[in-house]
Amino acid sequence: MPWKAIGIFDSGVGGLTVLKEIVKALPQEDTIYFGDTARVPYGTKSPETVTRYSLEIASFLVKRDIKLLVVACNTASACSLEALQETLSIPVVGVIEPGARRAVSVTRSGKVGVIGTEGTIRSSAYAKAIKRMNPEVEVVTRACPLFVPLAEEGWTDNEVARLTAETYLGGLRDHGVDTLVLGCTHYPILKKVIGETVGDAVKLVDSAEETARTVAEILRGKALLRPGAELGNHHYFVSDVPAGFIRVGNRFLGGRLGDVYQVSLEEKG
Amino acid sequence: MPWKAIGIFDSGVGGLTVLKEIVKALPQEDTIYFGDTARVPYGTKSPETVTRYSLEIASFLVKRDIKLLVVACNTASACSLEALQETLSIPVVGVIEPGARRAVSVTRSGKVGVIGTEGTIRSSAYAKAIKRMNPEVEVVTRACPLFVPLAEEGWTDNEVARLTAETYLGGLRDHGVDTLVLGCTHYPILKKVIGETVGDAVKLVDSAEETARTVAEILRGKALLRPGAELGNHHYFVSDVPAGFIRVGNRFLGGRLGDVYQVSLEEKG
Repeated sequence: MPWKAIGIFDSGVGGLTVLKEIVKALPQEDTIYFGDTARVPYGTKSPETVTRYSLEIASFLVKRDIKLLVVACNTASACSLEALQETLSIPVVGVIEPGARRAVSVTRSGKVGVIGTEGTIRSSAYAKAIKRMNPEVEVVTRACPLFVPLAEEGWTDNEVARLTAETYLGGLRDHGVDTLVLGCTHYPILKKVIGETVGDAVKLVDSAEETARTVAEILRGKALLRPGAELGNHHYFVSDVPAGFIRVGNRFLGGRLGDVYQVSLEEKG
Repeated sequence: MPWKAIGIFDSGVGGLTVLKEIVKALPQEDTIYFGDTARVPYGTKSPETVTRYSLEIASFLVKRDIKLLVVACNTASACSLEALQETLSIPVVGVIEPGARRAVSVTRSGKVGVIGTEGTIRSSAYAKAIKRMNPEVEVVTRACPLFVPLAEEGWTDNEVARLTAETYLGGLRDHGVDTLVLGCTHYPILKKVIGETVGDAVKLVDSAEETARTVAEILRGKALLRPGAELGNHHYFVSDVPAGFIRVGNRFLGGRLGDVYQVSLEEKG
């Protein structure tokens, strides 16, 4: 029996930061990644639409016989995780729970900030997850809709980025949070300017590492880890032409992106 | 025989600026508007994907028996106008030709600037149209990817907007253009800060009025204008849940947006 792959999806290229950590933690595993580049971004769309797109992608990946699905997109995790878990018979891991767990273990002041897209923040998914783990922790949230286009424009270290970060994050800093969850897979690209704005005393939490740890635990628990030392294979699918994904993806993964295939989910309807 | 409606589409809410001018010029006409809010924005997507989406929307509108189609989106006009004109048997009007014509008639220095999304600028559609009308006119172009998210965030008159405009437009101003085409239906929302950045001597061209004039001419030429003084009916369709469209749309149209219906093009495939 061939070992099944781990399925991973995101609205676009951002989820590759999660893939990278999974490959680092579990180098022998095969992965199949789907980036919905024809319909990106999800963060400004309604939960209903994001859930419809998530279910379409999950169905595409499940047909390729995956053993576990990672929702490597904060908006999709916030809006669609339950629907995916109800629909699929394999484990489904989002990025919200792992990020929340990390924040709860890291904070000393008991004040945690969470930033993300409008969809993620409006869902209160992080606040709910953190409160479930520790009801004492105070959560302050802020949607930062301009961070994704700034990261994609490559304006990560200029005056516009600094002024935008100050506008969004000044209030959080003044509120005394000591931990800030980067609740969007694009935000690590702006880590430098975000860190400078909130100051050294605030720890930045990026969900990717913690998500990879969760994936490893689940597969180990179910005896689904692929044995042996052979390195896994990685396949990439996108819904728009691959050029942009390949360019940014290679930057994310240090030039090690493999073949990328374009597929149309809609025509399969 | 009932009079047919004018079909109008955009990736989202921006095309309502064009609808508004059409209703002002032809108040007796019925209109059917489609905003592809589930897949917005088009400006960062490939021409192939934008064309596929445009053809899907056109097919939806043609089934509703329209007499003319207005592509009220610069990116879709730049990428898909030819494909639409080849496929449909009714007249198809984009916003590029009308905007280019206005710019050519307005410029005195013979130097015209054009700003738009990446998709619009990469297509060179404005430069080609302007050169076809007057090969002497020099065209300088600049993609401004952050203007759409700024307009949608409502940051139209703050320091981030001014600094972003200066970064994008400083070069155009120094180049001596006396006319600037706002080659994206969202940009009129940033008209104030764009105007202040390029200076009073530069005339801003917004395609909406000129597009409405073109529509009126074509319908008159084909004897398709609806007679009488009765005001037309206006119907709106969107692909995501309508809440956001209604809120912004009412701001665009001064509170006179009618009923908005959500439809899924993909499920009809």
